[in-house]
Amino acid sequence: MSPSRAIAYARAQRKKSLGELMDFIRFPTISAQPKHKRDIVSCANWLAGHLRRIGLGDVRIIPTKRHPLVSASWQGAPERPTILIYGHYDVQPVDPLDRWQSPPFEPTIRGGDLVARGACDDKGQLFTHVKALESYLQTAGVLPVNVKCLFEGEEEIGSPNLLPFVVRNQKSLAANAAVISDTRMLGRDRPAINYAERGALYLEIDVHGPKHDLHSGNYGGVVHNPLQALCEMVAKLHDTNGRITIPGIYDNVRTPSKKERAYMARAGPSDDKILEDAQAELAWGERGYSLYERLTLRPALTVNGISGGYQGPGGKGVIPARATAKLSFRLVPNHDPRDIDRLFREHIARLTPPSVHTTVRTVSRAEPVVIDPQNPAIRAASLAYRKGFGAAPVFLRSGGTIPILSAFQKMLGLPTVLMGFALPDDRMHAPNEKFHIPNFFKGIETSIWFMHALASAPGLRFRASPRRGKDVVAETAGIF
Amino acid sequence: MSPSRAIAYARAQRKKSLGELMDFIRFPTISAQPKHKRDIVSCANWLAGHLRRIGLGDVRIIPTKRHPLVSASWQGAPERPTILIYGHYDVQPVDPLDRWQSPPFEPTIRGGDLVARGACDDKGQLFTHVKALESYLQTAGVLPVNVKCLFEGEEEIGSPNLLPFVVRNQKSLAANAAVISDTRMLGRDRPAINYAERGALYLEIDVHGPKHDLHSGNYGGVVHNPLQALCEMVAKLHDTNGRITIPGIYDNVRTPSKKERAYMARAGPSDDKILEDAQAELAWGERGYSLYERLTLRPALTVNGISGGYQGPGGKGVIPARATAKLSFRLVPNHDPRDIDRLFREHIARLTPPSVHTTVRTVSRAEPVVIDPQNPAIRAASLAYRKGFGAAPVFLRSGGTIPILSAFQKMLGLPTVLMGFALPDDRMHAPNEKFHIPNFFKGIETSIWFMHALASAPGLRFRASPRRGKDVVAETAGIF
Repeated sequence: MSPSRAIAYARAQRKKSLGELMDFIRFPTISAQPKHKRDIVSCANWLAGHLRRIGLGDVRIIPTKRHPLVSASWQGAPERPTILIYGHYDVQPVDPLDRWQSPPFEPTIRGGDLVARGACDDKGQLFTHVKALESYLQTAGVLPVNVKCLFEGEEEIGSPNLLPFVVRNQKSLAANAAVISDTRMLGRDRPAINYAERGALYLEIDVHGPKHDLHSGNYGGVVHNPLQALCEMVAKLHDTNGRITIPGIYDNVRTPSKKERAYMARAGPSDDKILEDAQAELAWGERGYSLYERLTLRPALTVNGISGGYQGPGGKGVIPARATAKLSFRLVPNHDPRDIDRLFREHIARLTPPSVHTTVRTVSRAEPVVIDPQNPAIRAASLAYRKGFGAAPVFLRSGGTIPILSAFQKMLGLPTVLMGFALPDDRMHAPNEKFHIPNFFKGIETSIWFMHALASAPGLRFRASPRRGKDVVAETAGIF
Repeated sequence: MSPSRAIAYARAQRKKSLGELMDFIRFPTISAQPKHKRDIVSCANWLAGHLRRIGLGDVRIIPTKRHPLVSASWQGAPERPTILIYGHYDVQPVDPLDRWQSPPFEPTIRGGDLVARGACDDKGQLFTHVKALESYLQTAGVLPVNVKCLFEGEEEIGSPNLLPFVVRNQKSLAANAAVISDTRMLGRDRPAINYAERGALYLEIDVHGPKHDLHSGNYGGVVHNPLQALCEMVAKLHDTNGRITIPGIYDNVRTPSKKERAYMARAGPSDDKILEDAQAELAWGERGYSLYERLTLRPALTVNGISGGYQGPGGKGVIPARATAKLSFRLVPNHDPRDIDRLFREHIARLTPPSVHTTVRTVSRAEPVVIDPQNPAIRAASLAYRKGFGAAPVFLRSGGTIPILSAFQKMLGLPTVLMGFALPDDRMHAPNEKFHIPNFFKGIETSIWFMHALASAPGLRFRASPRRGKDVVAETAGIF
């Protein structure tokens, strides 16, 4: 089955596809915020309806303890491989709202970009595959491979309910490979396939001082301000060399081989490119590593938010009773998030001065993952990128996290293709998030070619063997 | 003129007076927040109408660049002294709202207390004098002394427009003494007159990093997080001995005499009492000084609020582009707030690492003040307290700040009586602020007695001589 008719369909439908993506984006599906629970249900219904309309079968909205999953499948080619397409329709919060140039959930086209929360992470990237499936189903009436779609509404809060779902449904999720489009290319014509993602550990710390807020005139200078104590503790979490000071945090960090470092220096973004993408003036962080290495081979600890005391206009003379910080680690092989959670709590207990109390809450955990880049699905993806973007992909490590990836790999034994269509300056998680519209269209064609290539990929029955806590796959596979 | 009929009137009208105070409190007059501008105007109108109704003359609402002043007078006794009664009808912000047991602007009676924002600071205390004036005017038809009332709506934002008003109206504000009820007693039956207030300097600092928020997976570990940089800077503002590290900050701090320290140890609250009032478990701060001394003789630097990054529920993987802290100094003789402003800015410039930028804004400034406790108005106040509360007042230093006090003293040459009716646990500036209702009634009677005593006070024509930057008044006056 030649993909040419599907490609022609995709091109003819570009305007309609973009309009549908804008409809998809308009749902404010912020999974972290309870007030958006109904919006998420509405979006799941919309997505399920859309999957039905393009011709997929067995479309289901699967309720969970929090936000529903949407699944669908097409099983019309029993002799062919099966691909699991994963994506997420939930998005990050939009704060700070005043930095958006247009309302975050009113998708706006500006200079070839579609600007909106979720444009790129992950509604736009998810939708490339939906439109590819439609292009086949509306022309040939069949797909070149069997497909299972699994779209969740909780990725941005750490996929808490997807993991147990995967555990319970290993049989029905069985496939030969998985594809996830939720990562970045190196640049406009420089596609990339990620072979590693960092893990994550998201925590909150509360510092409690006096029982209630105090007048800073009447009590300033005699009680330890919880906000000041929090600053003092946070300041101690890194040393002047940019290293995390938590004892034991580097103990299980795998030392990269010279070969891998040389490959990374050759294939990966330069320090200048990373700073340019970040629109940051100066680098910072752990000495002795390139920025690309710091982002991928080394753990990071970020203060994602602090709140305490008065935040309104003007002044308020107050010593707050409590201060809160949100902190997150990005973890690397062979970190176990549970170990780091314990080390962090032990360290905070040591850092807490007797004048205040601290409590730590774990928000979410995800394991770091390394993928064998030699698996046949990735070879099919390389071919598809060459067709869709006119260039072969480079193989990169990513600093980001896809929480369910570890379960796909270890539990379902699926070789997973991280086939990203985002650009480094797409402002994922930030105000004015965007998706480069040509990448949306090229992504659809790449997905069409990917399914075509998978249909005839030799050896796709290969199942990745679970390699718990080892980061040797890429190296032994000889990619460097 | 005996005050007995006024006292009888005040007692008979207690229920009505309390109801009127509750009406006064219901206006949400948060001066720091522009959205309450209209509420403040409504409250000023209400207060002006009330002053007219009780029989005061020349009632005016004086517009300023921001929030109006309300003034009134009674000049029916040309042979008698004139007293300037100052108070403020604006209040502090109510955050954190979720810690209030009843809505902040719905005054609620709980266990003998009136609970509401402004109950004590300063609507309740201001209103004691209004009700005392009413008690005379509605019985005798005259007052024992001439009175000028000056009530402002900007005290909690540093009185920015009152100072220029005082400069322009020195003649019409001429008086023999001033009284301000915006301070605390030592306990229920332990009245206190403050003879010193700390100054204040309120600042905001912004830390800027990357141009926009960044994904903490994609960039965590390679750029200096402004929120982390802010914590690192704030942590450096105090040393491990609780001292402020800003070079020069202690240079002009007057060393208290042994005599004063001995008096303060005798008359002032103990460390245990201060901690009990604060409901704090452990003391903190500058070594070598009692808590009362730290609060009054020594400068303090408080982080009043920090905001940066994500503050909503759950997590957001973000490196914020910017972080902001609100900080305030409490200053002591012989600090000049402008000097401290400069020292702070110089120090922040030194502390700012090359990886971020900082900007500092000055929100408000107020000078520290010491009052001669030997002036005749204060002797009249002592007498009044003995009548109103059944106990002679102690003379205390206060840690708080009344921004206009310095202008009253230096510009108008007015001996000022800080006649406080608040209790140490009244939660000024905090959720569940309260005013002890018996103190409201006793405050009214104390004010009635105060005016009575002033009428016959010998030597009230005494004008305090301006003593710029000197803190020798209390000592030379021989009170210790």
